[in-house]
Amino acid sequence: MNWIYLLDLFGTGIFAISGVITAIEKKFDLVGALIIGFITAIGGGSVRDVMIGRFPVGWLNDRNYIFAILVGYLVSYLFYNSVRKFKISMFLFDTIGIGLFTILGIQVAQNYGLRIEVCIFMGIISATFGGVIRDVLTNEIPLIFRKEIYATACFAGGITYFIMLQFSSIENLNIISSMLVVIVIRYLAIKNKWTLNFSSE
Amino acid sequence: MNWIYLLDLFGTGIFAISGVITAIEKKFDLVGALIIGFITAIGGGSVRDVMIGRFPVGWLNDRNYIFAILVGYLVSYLFYNSVRKFKISMFLFDTIGIGLFTILGIQVAQNYGLRIEVCIFMGIISATFGGVIRDVLTNEIPLIFRKEIYATACFAGGITYFIMLQFSSIENLNIISSMLVVIVIRYLAIKNKWTLNFSSE
Amino acid sequence: MNWIYLLDLFGTGIFAISGVITAIEKKFDLVGALIIGFITAIGGGSVRDVMIGRFPVGWLNDRNYIFAILVGYLVSYLFYNSVRKFKISMFLFDTIGIGLFTILGIQVAQNYGLRIEVCIFMGIISATFGGVIRDVLTNEIPLIFRKEIYATACFAGGITYFIMLQFSSIENLNIISSMLVVIVIRYLAIKNKWTLNFSSE
Repeated sequence: MNWIYLLDLFGTGIFAISGVITAIEKKFDLVGALIIGFITAIGGGSVRDVMIGRFPVGWLNDRNYIFAILVGYLVSYLFYNSVRKFKISMFLFDTIGIGLFTILGIQVAQNYGLRIEVCIFMGIISATFGGVIRDVLTNEIPLIFRKEIYATACFAGGITYFIMLQFSSIENLNIISSMLVVIVIRYLAIKNKWTLNFSSE
Repeated sequence: MNWIYLLDLFGTGIFAISGVITAIEKKFDLVGALIIGFITAIGGGSVRDVMIGRFPVGWLNDRNYIFAILVGYLVSYLFYNSVRKFKISMFLFDTIGIGLFTILGIQVAQNYGLRIEVCIFMGIISATFGGVIRDVLTNEIPLIFRKEIYATACFAGGITYFIMLQFSSIENLNIISSMLVVIVIRYLAIKNKWTLNFSSE
Repeated sequence: MNWIYLLDLFGTGIFAISGVITAIEKKFDLVGALIIGFITAIGGGSVRDVMIGRFPVGWLNDRNYIFAILVGYLVSYLFYNSVRKFKISMFLFDTIGIGLFTILGIQVAQNYGLRIEVCIFMGIISATFGGVIRDVLTNEIPLIFRKEIYATACFAGGITYFIMLQFSSIENLNIISSMLVVIVIRYLAIKNKWTLNFSSE
């Protein structure tokens, strides 16, 4: 039990909330919302694990992830209006989750001896694919592809992590500084309405 | 060759029919309908197998599943109007398939030493994800999430199965009683238009 | 380094271009387009590898595929208008890629000792699922299911490959003739507007 593990569970719960809220807005029923919450929370890590051949996929081995998702599910319904009102807090929590999942995803890929660029790609998948699957299942074009500097922030965080590894052996420092890069880039991007569009007209 | 195996093949064919009929209604061509039928029939079991690390995924090892799907495909085209007219029979067959796939999915997960709640989750995935993928590929929001007591019925059937295991060692009895729970719940839900909606307004 | 490997990389780049162009037309941002290009290029092979239990999935082991995708990405943006204007060339390249991926997918499945019909199915998946996932992520009904003799061409190419294996041990000849079958069927289908529709009215 260390702070990373606790943050991981916390991030899992936050991702579940984002899925459940989306499902409620789309008029899904109670079970549909639970399934969407579940998939949003564990989808990214599952896709990563399946691609690198890590079986059974991670969350199956640890009941606490399931509890975290159930807590997120209950919070979504009990505090539905509050959760929606405090979109800023949700955004902050969500970004912390994304930052953490990027780095944890990279570490899992490193343990499988994969090359740096593949590790970073797996980090991005861990952080973003839960949301991608959520959007596909609710018949939306995934948000990540259009409106937000999202994958880019994960990418920058992943690069930062590998740079830090060259200079520091203090794991906590490496993780926190990489997460901060993700959070700051995403925050600035939203605040300044940065986009990465290409115009062909 | 026992009755469970035969019912499994029968359920596979029924799932294929539900996929092919959907595809025909969406004006897919002959090959598109075959692919949708295939994916509807083997999608749930494949997702389950991939998550728990069972390779190659189950249906690849047994040609009879492919035959069952091809029979379902032919039946869909040859008796297209009849199949659509007898929606009640289709609903019954479909529900039998869902009930059986839930329990068979649980048993596969049990063989991999997974915990009870994960087994139930894998049972639900086995029974429902073929339909989820079918709906995603035909650009619909998956039916399961909105209109039907569907995953809930599978969940109840899974719980029943584990309760039965405590009291009975007669496998057929355990399977049949769990399937009956799925079928009865789904039947009552449709008949009485039960929903599990949450209103935030 | 042989011609098949080079053609494989070339096909990967072409598939990436088709993904990136679709993404640009859908107003995705630079990173979204990169991700769609990536998934279009490696999606089919990844689904095949996951189903047969080949880990980590193929492209993770070879950096050249990533380079091929990045080249395709750059070409898409640098020559966006030209690429769109020369739809005929793109169609030709795309069809070559589909033909090759069908046969390479079959060979991978053969190495895993799978039966003929499963090998052909895996060939079709290799060739088509990148495009299917691309269409799902951009919220389109996959093209393959409705408008084109596409999977059918792959299927015919796969059959040809296994027939050739009975008569010839010259691998290059077997591959080229099977690819030609795919290319010619798809060309004739587009030219003559063949469809495989079923009318129930």
